[in-house]
Amino acid sequence: MKIIQTISGFFRNFLFTPLKRVFKGMGKKEELLKLPAPFVPDEEADSKQYEAHPSGAYMMLKMIFRDIGRYNAVIETLGRDFLTAMPKGAYKSRLGQIGFLHRRKHEELANPQVAAFIEEAHTHEKSNPKDWDDWDHANLREMEIMYRHHCQVDPELIERRARLGYEGRRVHSDVMKNNDWDTARPFLEDMISLTRRIAESKCLRDNEHESESPYQALMREYIPGFRIADIEKIFGQTRTKLDEILPQILEKQAAEKAPLPLKGPFPETQQMWLNKTLLRAIGFDFSRGGLYETGFNPVEGGTPEDTHLVIKAVNQNNFLISMKSTLHEGGHGLYVQGLPRDIWRYQPVGYDMGNAWHESQALMIEMILGRRREFFDYLAPRVEGLFQKFNDPSMTADNLYQLKTRVKKTADRKTADEVTYFYHINLRFELERKLFSGELEVKDLPDAWSAGLEEALGVTPENNMHGCLQDVHWFVGKFGYFPSYSLGHMIAAQVYTVMRKDIQNIPELLSEGNLIPVRDWLNHKVHKTGRLNRPGALMEEITGAPLSPGPLLAHLEERYLHNA
Amino acid sequence: MKIIQTISGFFRNFLFTPLKRVFKGMGKKEELLKLPAPFVPDEEADSKQYEAHPSGAYMMLKMIFRDIGRYNAVIETLGRDFLTAMPKGAYKSRLGQIGFLHRRKHEELANPQVAAFIEEAHTHEKSNPKDWDDWDHANLREMEIMYRHHCQVDPELIERRARLGYEGRRVHSDVMKNNDWDTARPFLEDMISLTRRIAESKCLRDNEHESESPYQALMREYIPGFRIADIEKIFGQTRTKLDEILPQILEKQAAEKAPLPLKGPFPETQQMWLNKTLLRAIGFDFSRGGLYETGFNPVEGGTPEDTHLVIKAVNQNNFLISMKSTLHEGGHGLYVQGLPRDIWRYQPVGYDMGNAWHESQALMIEMILGRRREFFDYLAPRVEGLFQKFNDPSMTADNLYQLKTRVKKTADRKTADEVTYFYHINLRFELERKLFSGELEVKDLPDAWSAGLEEALGVTPENNMHGCLQDVHWFVGKFGYFPSYSLGHMIAAQVYTVMRKDIQNIPELLSEGNLIPVRDWLNHKVHKTGRLNRPGALMEEITGAPLSPGPLLAHLEERYLHNA
Repeated sequence: MKIIQTISGFFRNFLFTPLKRVFKGMGKKEELLKLPAPFVPDEEADSKQYEAHPSGAYMMLKMIFRDIGRYNAVIETLGRDFLTAMPKGAYKSRLGQIGFLHRRKHEELANPQVAAFIEEAHTHEKSNPKDWDDWDHANLREMEIMYRHHCQVDPELIERRARLGYEGRRVHSDVMKNNDWDTARPFLEDMISLTRRIAESKCLRDNEHESESPYQALMREYIPGFRIADIEKIFGQTRTKLDEILPQILEKQAAEKAPLPLKGPFPETQQMWLNKTLLRAIGFDFSRGGLYETGFNPVEGGTPEDTHLVIKAVNQNNFLISMKSTLHEGGHGLYVQGLPRDIWRYQPVGYDMGNAWHESQALMIEMILGRRREFFDYLAPRVEGLFQKFNDPSMTADNLYQLKTRVKKTADRKTADEVTYFYHINLRFELERKLFSGELEVKDLPDAWSAGLEEALGVTPENNMHGCLQDVHWFVGKFGYFPSYSLGHMIAAQVYTVMRKDIQNIPELLSEGNLIPVRDWLNHKVHKTGRLNRPGALMEEITGAPLSPGPLLAHLEERYLHNA
Repeated sequence: MKIIQTISGFFRNFLFTPLKRVFKGMGKKEELLKLPAPFVPDEEADSKQYEAHPSGAYMMLKMIFRDIGRYNAVIETLGRDFLTAMPKGAYKSRLGQIGFLHRRKHEELANPQVAAFIEEAHTHEKSNPKDWDDWDHANLREMEIMYRHHCQVDPELIERRARLGYEGRRVHSDVMKNNDWDTARPFLEDMISLTRRIAESKCLRDNEHESESPYQALMREYIPGFRIADIEKIFGQTRTKLDEILPQILEKQAAEKAPLPLKGPFPETQQMWLNKTLLRAIGFDFSRGGLYETGFNPVEGGTPEDTHLVIKAVNQNNFLISMKSTLHEGGHGLYVQGLPRDIWRYQPVGYDMGNAWHESQALMIEMILGRRREFFDYLAPRVEGLFQKFNDPSMTADNLYQLKTRVKKTADRKTADEVTYFYHINLRFELERKLFSGELEVKDLPDAWSAGLEEALGVTPENNMHGCLQDVHWFVGKFGYFPSYSLGHMIAAQVYTVMRKDIQNIPELLSEGNLIPVRDWLNHKVHKTGRLNRPGALMEEITGAPLSPGPLLAHLEERYLHNA
């Protein structure tokens, strides 16, 4: 496989700063971690994770990162259980357990011994290039990136944040019941203050080159390979073009007949059957994962062997809501299940490309493909049968397609259409940067939110519940995540330009309810490459060009102005 | 509270051997564990776990054992998930994760720094007796016992055994499908060989006093406070008496009309509703636990905040099977939920008394109380309604009572009646001692089993599936556990002699389906005392006498010969 080792200037500087300057305590022998002896389970002896390598330091690193990966996997299982099975009374102690595991994981990673091994492995890599294949190179590179990202953070902050993040899930769910700003405000203040302390210790210690803002350091966790300035440029171009075509789309749709609303009820059992059946149609493997309902917000995650797609408990009045969420999480699920972890298991090179790429896989299924007219040709007659609505005019392919492609300026991100969605993301991207630069305080957030939404879409949220409280992200500490959605949308559209050349019968496949060839293509191009490439290099490898908003804007024009 | 600090001669020797002789590597400064900084969650600041104590070493121990307890809690949650929710494809990686957590837990416990803290805390305890209340004394004592039990075992053996134990659950379930001795034999050989290596490193290093056999060392994990010789004596007395009364019981029942068999089907949904409702009647708190079905064998466990009772998927032909299992696990569940862990949380003094006491709580509910005639007066008309069997003669209180108290010599432990149950346990106790002393090899187990059962009850198992393969215990590595059942039965009968004086209206309560006063009594006498006492001392505290088989034998005569 050809590898484009495109490392941006930023990353070159980052990687080439000596580790001794990155980790202050490094090399104090008395602090060295007591190393785990590598116990190799028989059935995995021939995986790349356990394959013998002439660099002893690299072998030790593989074992250390295996164990870090195991902590991650356990945390994922506890997280699924938290949302779907845990008795209420276990809430407090579970917070303690999750925080504790995060701390132990962090302690095993952010350890000077790890830095010493990385330096030693690099020395071996330089003097014995033949011993290192592309995957091993990439694995060591990702180990170093992961180490540098975490090494300066105080374990206590890690533990506190893990607890607070899970508390935030419940606080959010509570404040949304009563539009309860008075509870939300101090919680968000605490969360931002804690997250800022973490961000400050994540800022790169690299005084010779550019110095990093706390927000950039946070974004690095979710969207590796992207810089604030790059995103500002891309989002600016997108905004300009959307400001031009959105009025045209609205005008065009105003001239058309409005779609009929759905007539419920759509019973839960049938909805969940439909959702699971659609997941099988896109190629999700239920022997290695499952679909769950929760009282909390949707989440996806886990490991390729235990992939959980958790959606909000179904709404009996509208099956399209849980279906949308299922297709979205299903796209994530294909990515998780397709990672090269049968051979690389817990190694960093076997992980995904970060959240922009992850969202691209979700939005490819949910929006790019799942809102094509042909999919509704497949879906409509079948849901007419499933829900016993023969000849209901709201259940035609045409009407369902119109319902899913109707564009409307609203205050709500989650139910927003494919066109106005960007404005919601852009608003959050602006506000969270201000929250971290100190330009905006939490107490002023509701006003800033309303003003921003008014400026962007000309609408005002009814109240905070429909405004700055609507998303769970900030409550769980995910600052720097939001740009992933729009970047993911752009990545999906750009990747799709190649996919539709490679798979010429996509419309037919959709009308037959068969997305297996699509899954296989995505697996080949994206999923199974793990972190072999850096995110930018992957885009160039697949499409021959760097990421640009052009394909997404062309896609929106095509679908919403030219009805193609 | 008055504490009987009765420590048997054995335990005195065990506790007073200097730790330096117990842990070989102790005191090498370079091996000292890097200690966790105590992070105190706000909501637990006033618990005894976090309460400041003038001995700094004891405070550090409390934090170390808190973290060990957290590993335990996480392992329990992963175990419940393994049995009830995990996708099949996650089997292999889950084994790795569980083994890994067991290893890390072991490494944090079996560490010379822990021994040093224990010695330091003991010094403080002796010179500042006023600073130590009964609970702190007991907590430090239990820390030391736990440390000594584990400190010599190689972490790799711990990891291997945890994996093999979970594999054993699946191997057992597979071999039971086809009576597959050829798969079972090598697996059991591996398990015994691994367990023997662990047992040998658990044998007390105490050359001045008695030296311990590997089987005794294993039993110490499950039945602390009991010696092989004590059990041999108690079981011998029991066997002699049962050999005398069993023929009389059989003769008496042969003269009576046989009970009518149940006529199914009894749908799963109704059975599970019944089981949950009975759990509420005994006082199980569903906000801190749940009842689950599994394709594997029944298991109970978890923490007081997340107590899982896992029963085998219900049998539609006979609701008494899942009901029996539910009442049994429910008794365990009351114990788990009643432990003093709101204040002691993960501290050793907050744990249970070991498996003999645990089984006593299960058998108190399932057998001692749950097979009294009055309970069936409550149950019968209600299950007639629930299962829509009005006036079905097999559903009368009389018939259900007879079905549950019919005595019959069979080869099957799990469905054995209350009288012949002992013979099954005694056989396993004899065979597993021989397997560990080397007198018996796995290849000869089927013959030894048949011969033993023939001698004990005069019956022969149809095949290995109904013989030496029927129990999951040995497949999961539980050697030294079986005596718990009969000891627990005896403990329950002896404790009941006091309970029925304290709660004089037990028959009325049973006929009203209300066991809350019973739960509260058990909680006060047993559950909430955690490990404040040693197991033997607890029995003396409650009943004024050491454990004896007398009360159980009297109970069996009363119920099965005198129909009282």
